[in-house]
Amino acid sequence: MQDDLNTNLCNAVDAAFDQQVQFLSDLTAHPSIRGNEQSAQAFMATTLSERGYELDRWQIDVAEISHLPGFSPVIGDYEDAVNVVGTHRSRTQSGRSLILNGHIDVVPAGPLDMWDSPPFEPRVEDGWLYGRGGGDMKAGLASNLFALDALAACGLAPGGDVFVQSVVEEECTGNGALACLARGYAADAALIPEPFSEHLVTAQLGVIWFQVHLRGRPTHVAYAGSGANAIEAAFPLIRALHEMEHRWNAAEHRPADYAHMDHALNLNLGKIEGGDWTSSVPAWAVFDVRMAIFPGQSIEAAKTEIEQVILDAARDNDFLRNSLPEIVYHGFHAEGYALSQDSSAKAQSAIAALDQAHQAATGEALVREAITATTDARFFGLYADTPALVYGPRAEAIHGFNERVELESMRRVTKATAMFIADWCGVETI
Amino acid sequence: MQDDLNTNLCNAVDAAFDQQVQFLSDLTAHPSIRGNEQSAQAFMATTLSERGYELDRWQIDVAEISHLPGFSPVIGDYEDAVNVVGTHRSRTQSGRSLILNGHIDVVPAGPLDMWDSPPFEPRVEDGWLYGRGGGDMKAGLASNLFALDALAACGLAPGGDVFVQSVVEEECTGNGALACLARGYAADAALIPEPFSEHLVTAQLGVIWFQVHLRGRPTHVAYAGSGANAIEAAFPLIRALHEMEHRWNAAEHRPADYAHMDHALNLNLGKIEGGDWTSSVPAWAVFDVRMAIFPGQSIEAAKTEIEQVILDAARDNDFLRNSLPEIVYHGFHAEGYALSQDSSAKAQSAIAALDQAHQAATGEALVREAITATTDARFFGLYADTPALVYGPRAEAIHGFNERVELESMRRVTKATAMFIADWCGVETI
Repeated sequence: MQDDLNTNLCNAVDAAFDQQVQFLSDLTAHPSIRGNEQSAQAFMATTLSERGYELDRWQIDVAEISHLPGFSPVIGDYEDAVNVVGTHRSRTQSGRSLILNGHIDVVPAGPLDMWDSPPFEPRVEDGWLYGRGGGDMKAGLASNLFALDALAACGLAPGGDVFVQSVVEEECTGNGALACLARGYAADAALIPEPFSEHLVTAQLGVIWFQVHLRGRPTHVAYAGSGANAIEAAFPLIRALHEMEHRWNAAEHRPADYAHMDHALNLNLGKIEGGDWTSSVPAWAVFDVRMAIFPGQSIEAAKTEIEQVILDAARDNDFLRNSLPEIVYHGFHAEGYALSQDSSAKAQSAIAALDQAHQAATGEALVREAITATTDARFFGLYADTPALVYGPRAEAIHGFNERVELESMRRVTKATAMFIADWCGVETI
Repeated sequence: MQDDLNTNLCNAVDAAFDQQVQFLSDLTAHPSIRGNEQSAQAFMATTLSERGYELDRWQIDVAEISHLPGFSPVIGDYEDAVNVVGTHRSRTQSGRSLILNGHIDVVPAGPLDMWDSPPFEPRVEDGWLYGRGGGDMKAGLASNLFALDALAACGLAPGGDVFVQSVVEEECTGNGALACLARGYAADAALIPEPFSEHLVTAQLGVIWFQVHLRGRPTHVAYAGSGANAIEAAFPLIRALHEMEHRWNAAEHRPADYAHMDHALNLNLGKIEGGDWTSSVPAWAVFDVRMAIFPGQSIEAAKTEIEQVILDAARDNDFLRNSLPEIVYHGFHAEGYALSQDSSAKAQSAIAALDQAHQAATGEALVREAITATTDARFFGLYADTPALVYGPRAEAIHGFNERVELESMRRVTKATAMFIADWCGVETI
């Protein structure tokens, strides 16, 4: 009977797959970079309402989450940050509940001329959909929705409550997912179809963002010797940070999940800006850094060391010594999270269920992977005692040019998700 | 009689000095950074018209100047670039003609919180006027005007034609002064009261601006090893440019005017911008450089070497090798100019006249100075066979914070200018 159900679910996914690709394309066309997610969220809300989900749509209130563990500092308010959740209430309450989470925000496209086609005009070619956010992670949002659709097409609904979450802020803070926790959303497990090649993510890194502000007294370049170049003053600080990165990656600091990786922790100089006028010695520079930490590494200790490294390097510098840099945090304060360390029966049983569903969809064993990024999984795993399974389609060039997601991979993940839901939550007739 | 005239002119400058300070303050309050000079130019035009000068006010047309020697490349059009010239036509044509030139454009103020008081709300304290552009060079524009006023107050006018020029674009191209040449303005000498401490500028450097564009294929920082950081790729190029700067300053390359200066040629990394997102490996970076050249050094040869240095450094770099930088010129293509090399009788006589006027105003000999910046003097000296005297008041922190000009210095320069005009042009009764 399980086999029959699985076959029917897979057939239902196949039957609606053209629709699913169209949905993915429509969703990817919304340029939902941070601050601009409204139209994409409206599209998600309409889609959920049309399918009969109970709709919850709210603006994130910093005051409601800023005291919670896992909160990341933000600059400015959240006037434009809206979460959307569609809820299926099980009639029978016979099974376990589930959160199907995905983020709607995408990272900026960068220079348009480096794309082969416009980033927000998705196109399908040779089995891949191209477009910013198609992989990271709108294909996952589509998979969540169409997996549930497959159950409905079979005349079934999950036997436990299911919460379909479309959150903002995953790419910079995670405060969107945190706001769902704060609003009371809880379940027996969470599934997040981030694009990691149909692998199960068993560990993810933590991430800290910081911004370094340099100031100095500039002058006409004719007297460059007496002015201090704030842009060039950044270079020794960046060098010192890379030395810290090297130390943190040393074999003796690696937890088991990352023991095999020589360089799991990447420090990224992601942005820089400085100076106003070519013939003025620049008075200011600001640079933005992303640094990763291992699961178990303390954010506070990491910040202390980062600050120490920057200030020590600054004190070594003639100009900076008298004008020490200011370090500002306004983004990720994300701890690492390792599902592999969750020995609870709930976690083991969720992993087993996903393993089975994956094998049924693909004919292959579920590969486990420790990733070098972060995801919203940490909120469920660390702060809500909820095993969070990160498992999604294969994508390439995420955060890069010509980002793309493999459509057959999305199909397989959708099938696996439908079978996982049926197994985890059980089913009831509509 | 000359002594009497000088005394009368000095008294007239003193009598109107409060008015002059008020005028300088009003002019400095106009935030005439590039593209925003209109209100300051309108103020200059009104001031000139009220005094009875024949007014000429026109928008720079790139097509009219782009073929001329001394033209600097610009990006965009000149819709907002307006020059103002007020002309005094001598009734008697008994003396020599003169251009009194000054630039109305000022450089950006930089971060406002680094100013003790707002840069465009000038204030006077302890004999200095503070404000962006007060020194560079609105005090000079005031000096030009009020020197002529002093003659008028004595019932006199210059005995030759005098052209009072208020030009734009001095701080980035010099195309404002060039447009005055192209429009036919010519005279026997030019005076430009740039703020060089009442010294006579005998040599000035050339300046080249260039912009370096770096591009690469970025990716999620989780895979930083496979992405190329466009910001960090800039660092070795900047290092190589500083090595070039060092070579160009070597003793054997210095012309006589600069033989005593170890580091006359400054390379300034004036601006940088790169990256879109802290957790994306940056795909692009752009930096802006100002490099000086000696008088006599060829711009074309300098550009060739700059390009060679950048491309050689890029070919040494794993990432840049496959994505060579693009070098864009969009600002100064300024040759050096040495008044000291002008042995013409006209130049010698102009310098002698200024020397005398300066001694009469200050009681001290006129100091000669080779400066490490450029000024619009090159257009008159190199392309119009007109000796250009750069001689203006003492200012501090030009292009810096709390830029200020010494008011007593402006007073002395105004007196010297009035006496120089009377000597050079002769006088006629109004």
